[in-house]
Amino acid sequence: MKDDYTMKRFLKGVGGGPVFFKKNALFLLDQRKIPREEKYIRVKTAKETAAAIRKMVVRGAPAIGVAAAYGMALGRGNITLAADVLLKSRPTAVNLKWAVDRMLAINTDNFGKLLKEAEKIEKENKVLCEKISKNGAKLIKKNSVVMTHCNAGALATGGTGTALGVLYAAKKKIKLVIVKETRPRLQGANLTTYELKKWKMPYILISDTASAFAMKKYNVSAIIVGADRIASNGDTANKIGTYALAIEARYHRIPFYVAAPYSTIDFGIKSGKKIVIEERNQDEVLKINGKPIAVAGTKAFNPAFDVTPAKLISAIITERGFIKNPDRKKMEQLYG
Amino acid sequence: MKDDYTMKRFLKGVGGGPVFFKKNALFLLDQRKIPREEKYIRVKTAKETAAAIRKMVVRGAPAIGVAAAYGMALGRGNITLAADVLLKSRPTAVNLKWAVDRMLAINTDNFGKLLKEAEKIEKENKVLCEKISKNGAKLIKKNSVVMTHCNAGALATGGTGTALGVLYAAKKKIKLVIVKETRPRLQGANLTTYELKKWKMPYILISDTASAFAMKKYNVSAIIVGADRIASNGDTANKIGTYALAIEARYHRIPFYVAAPYSTIDFGIKSGKKIVIEERNQDEVLKINGKPIAVAGTKAFNPAFDVTPAKLISAIITERGFIKNPDRKKMEQLYG
Repeated sequence: MKDDYTMKRFLKGVGGGPVFFKKNALFLLDQRKIPREEKYIRVKTAKETAAAIRKMVVRGAPAIGVAAAYGMALGRGNITLAADVLLKSRPTAVNLKWAVDRMLAINTDNFGKLLKEAEKIEKENKVLCEKISKNGAKLIKKNSVVMTHCNAGALATGGTGTALGVLYAAKKKIKLVIVKETRPRLQGANLTTYELKKWKMPYILISDTASAFAMKKYNVSAIIVGADRIASNGDTANKIGTYALAIEARYHRIPFYVAAPYSTIDFGIKSGKKIVIEERNQDEVLKINGKPIAVAGTKAFNPAFDVTPAKLISAIITERGFIKNPDRKKMEQLYG
Repeated sequence: MKDDYTMKRFLKGVGGGPVFFKKNALFLLDQRKIPREEKYIRVKTAKETAAAIRKMVVRGAPAIGVAAAYGMALGRGNITLAADVLLKSRPTAVNLKWAVDRMLAINTDNFGKLLKEAEKIEKENKVLCEKISKNGAKLIKKNSVVMTHCNAGALATGGTGTALGVLYAAKKKIKLVIVKETRPRLQGANLTTYELKKWKMPYILISDTASAFAMKKYNVSAIIVGADRIASNGDTANKIGTYALAIEARYHRIPFYVAAPYSTIDFGIKSGKKIVIEERNQDEVLKINGKPIAVAGTKAFNPAFDVTPAKLISAIITERGFIKNPDRKKMEQLYG
């Protein structure tokens, strides 16, 4: 892989990034290897794209959406089959379905036309990130200590990110970012520290267990996370641990923000109760670096996401602005 | 090491256990190696005992107390120096100070007399565990799903445990134990699953991030943890993550119990604000199995404990009974 596709150059705005299309193939930065290695995987079919999404080579709801759009283009000759295999890859992120539906709406099997639409989705996604970042930055006060969970940055979006995008846009107002490691897959430790270092932001890493204590100790000003699916009443599915974090934030009276593109909102479902929560392989909990952490025979419960009720969310930030204390009524005003 | 000192036989009540004295030496089960290996470390001086405590070969406030008592006996000829080195090993657990003070009160350098007192402390500790377990079991309802954090079992006490002792005593009433892995040192995953398996209790492991979601999903009946130091108003220092867990429990209206020997209560301090919180090496957060999880140059905040305010605690269980909704007044009635 040529050097001009590295994350580093991408962050400088000179191409590359976690998801891009070139010479009839989709290139995906293998996020399972970050921060140890910057390596791309080359994908040539819809099926391979679906496998890469399932294995979390690419992750983060918006980035999954972009990858799926290109995956549809790679389903040459049979977009129905491509849609089928892609939709099955991961059940919770709504952006995946949104991107697939939009590609289906082109109603063609023509590769050129499909590719054009996927490129459009990718470009739109970058613009969305900028808008979300600008809108969210207004909520960040001077000298803020901000806590974040998982990774909702450049790696998760293909743009500058949603939750992290807000922090990048508000960089001058940020005294410290507290990064939760985000077990079981450690996206906070692996990916968010990697991005924050590249952006030269001040940050520290904590174990997930230290969240509540750190809120007190560091006098945390705000907490910001991304989203994988938002119900029409504002209930938000995001990485496992988000719900606990929102409860702790409320207890400490710290504002809790969700940043996500408008397309993350699923107006087809009334509340978070209707969101399907993906349960992943138990080994993600039971093993670290391939080594068991529990006694042999132990079973684990491994949900990939949880649902934070709208009442615990101080504001939902999208490219259309932000909704404070979201509820069904306010969400509906955003619709359309 | 002979087989008759294994944990397994200890749990059957035929000798061994995590801390015992034999043939002029202290034997400590190396808890850093559980569940992979059952290996003992042989310690012959107060200094070696202190090092074993600091390195967490032995951990858990009551077990540290017993080890420290034997460590005092091993300080032959100079109990003042022995007390000094032992007290410096870990700052938060009050049982350490309590045991050292009790050994100092014997006011002798005679090995035989010191050993006798240490043996007395060990035996008392086992009786305490039984009493705490019985008292706590009264609070556990039929068909309970109970969540626990870290390890407050046989390994932490030398007896049957405090928080886990309660669950063992209430075994017939327990439908499921949910074990939090307890990052950064994973005592829940490593040690608690190991004990629960030996006791043939039904359990599952979760990542710390899944705690709040699991409370909802499994309709958790109660949460029970141990303690490292309890202030005279009931504020409780325990393994990092306990505070977050207590907040989540309150949000879900789940009773939150603390089980610990009376000696864990430090009547010398008015509130949790006065408890010194040990910060351990950043590498405990930054590396897992020796491998870095974050980008090079990352700094971590790694407190070993946090303080849960008394108002979040439904009951403190000791060998003297239990105090519901603890406060200064109720705690003082226990004094003496």
